[in-house]
Amino acid sequence: MNSLGNATFENYVGMESGFSEMAYQMSAHVLTLGYAIMLAALLYFVLTMKSVSPKYRISSVLSVVVMVSAFLLLYVQAGNWTSAFTFDASSGTYQLANDADLFNNGYRYLNWLIDVPMLLFQILFVVTLKTSKFSSVRNGFWFSGTAMIITGYIGQFYEVTNPTLFFIWGAISTVFFFHILYLMKKVIDEGKQGISPKAAGYVGAIWTVFLFSWMLYPGAYLMPYLFSFSMEPALTETAVVARHITYTVADVVSKVIYGILLTLTAMELSKDEGYDYDSLTTTS
Amino acid sequence: MNSLGNATFENYVGMESGFSEMAYQMSAHVLTLGYAIMLAALLYFVLTMKSVSPKYRISSVLSVVVMVSAFLLLYVQAGNWTSAFTFDASSGTYQLANDADLFNNGYRYLNWLIDVPMLLFQILFVVTLKTSKFSSVRNGFWFSGTAMIITGYIGQFYEVTNPTLFFIWGAISTVFFFHILYLMKKVIDEGKQGISPKAAGYVGAIWTVFLFSWMLYPGAYLMPYLFSFSMEPALTETAVVARHITYTVADVVSKVIYGILLTLTAMELSKDEGYDYDSLTTTS
Repeated sequence: MNSLGNATFENYVGMESGFSEMAYQMSAHVLTLGYAIMLAALLYFVLTMKSVSPKYRISSVLSVVVMVSAFLLLYVQAGNWTSAFTFDASSGTYQLANDADLFNNGYRYLNWLIDVPMLLFQILFVVTLKTSKFSSVRNGFWFSGTAMIITGYIGQFYEVTNPTLFFIWGAISTVFFFHILYLMKKVIDEGKQGISPKAAGYVGAIWTVFLFSWMLYPGAYLMPYLFSFSMEPALTETAVVARHITYTVADVVSKVIYGILLTLTAMELSKDEGYDYDSLTTTS
Repeated sequence: MNSLGNATFENYVGMESGFSEMAYQMSAHVLTLGYAIMLAALLYFVLTMKSVSPKYRISSVLSVVVMVSAFLLLYVQAGNWTSAFTFDASSGTYQLANDADLFNNGYRYLNWLIDVPMLLFQILFVVTLKTSKFSSVRNGFWFSGTAMIITGYIGQFYEVTNPTLFFIWGAISTVFFFHILYLMKKVIDEGKQGISPKAAGYVGAIWTVFLFSWMLYPGAYLMPYLFSFSMEPALTETAVVARHITYTVADVVSKVIYGILLTLTAMELSKDEGYDYDSLTTTS
């Protein structure tokens, strides 16, 4: 690795020594898995929409919106990976392809620009706020969600070329990240009040899933430094594959599992409020 | 074939002598058949969803989820095959294409990472457990299902480069496989109790179909050794084509036939429980 002062394009993903068969293929498979899960879950959210009472259905609609955008952007992201590298028989490794784009996680970031506000907004249609004002929580979610993604997106361009800028933008992004966590904790705590224990259990599970999956993103952002054990970035193939896996797990949990838990919460609340999906469909 | 000590990337699929026209084409056709069946069956599961009473419909939804992810990943898997090789007129065979990805069955494996937990989970919405606890069977299915796929996925990377690791990972995967078979047998035995003979007949058929199709997978995993009749791997073209056919048959039976049988079981149970789809739809 170059010293920070003369970091050059040699630091870009896969520029130096390419990828082993296993590292390249695992990345391709994981990226493909990511968008396939989004399309599969899209059908789940469409087909289960009527199992909740009408006032909760907007949550399913927002999950569908998130699935479509995530499917498309992760599909392009996977294509970015497979077209960036080709197998080189003489070295037995995957090397940067001629005349191809460099690989960059930017598609993923711009997907989040749609998804993050939607995912945060979504829970406000399922839980009922007791003391906080709907509009102020919503505006906080939207402002901090958008600001967190844009600053992180800018920062990630500098991950190997300019660590100072990478950390400054990352730190700004993290401030907004903590504001979102603070707001979400408030929403969860208020949302658990005055509902059945089973529904409250689902709301509690949403907080666990949310916290776990969202904490993976800063880790993935810092991956070039986590695997170098120093202040010099190292996009080793382990770091690159670990990052693909981390982002995919985080995306699936924060969008799909989170959305399913919101559906289950809404089903429980619907039942408690007298909405009977079973008899509804047998008599109609 | 090289000796084990200096196994290199020359052992990768199609690297050595390419494929005959027949072997290449049969593989392309079988892989295409695989994803076409998934998309066709997707429509079956959507269109028959209302023929079962609401409480069983989540089984159809899970089949749809499985069909979407299987369709997409098998579509990419087929594309991986057709782009990896090109016809070489001078030798009259298909040879590894320049600047293309190597062929690898990994997309298939990562598809199973979605499908296996879904397929196992699915039956729990149709049959009623008599003595076992729903949550403990579900958790067993998910844990062992996921562990079986991940360990098998890692193992398959070593199929020609490192037979020791290939067999060790395969053996670990098999332990989880047997745990799943054990759990499924319990689910089937309990599920047959207290339902009409016709419904119980379907549940019995599900076990036959399950056992037959799932036993094909270890055979396909071991294919490079089954056709070499020795401890040296041989990815001959017969082994490669036989593996494509085995995986495709196994995927179609374990996902599509299994899902159809679950739908038929649920239709029978719905009828026995007073859900009358025929009069329902004619009067509405």
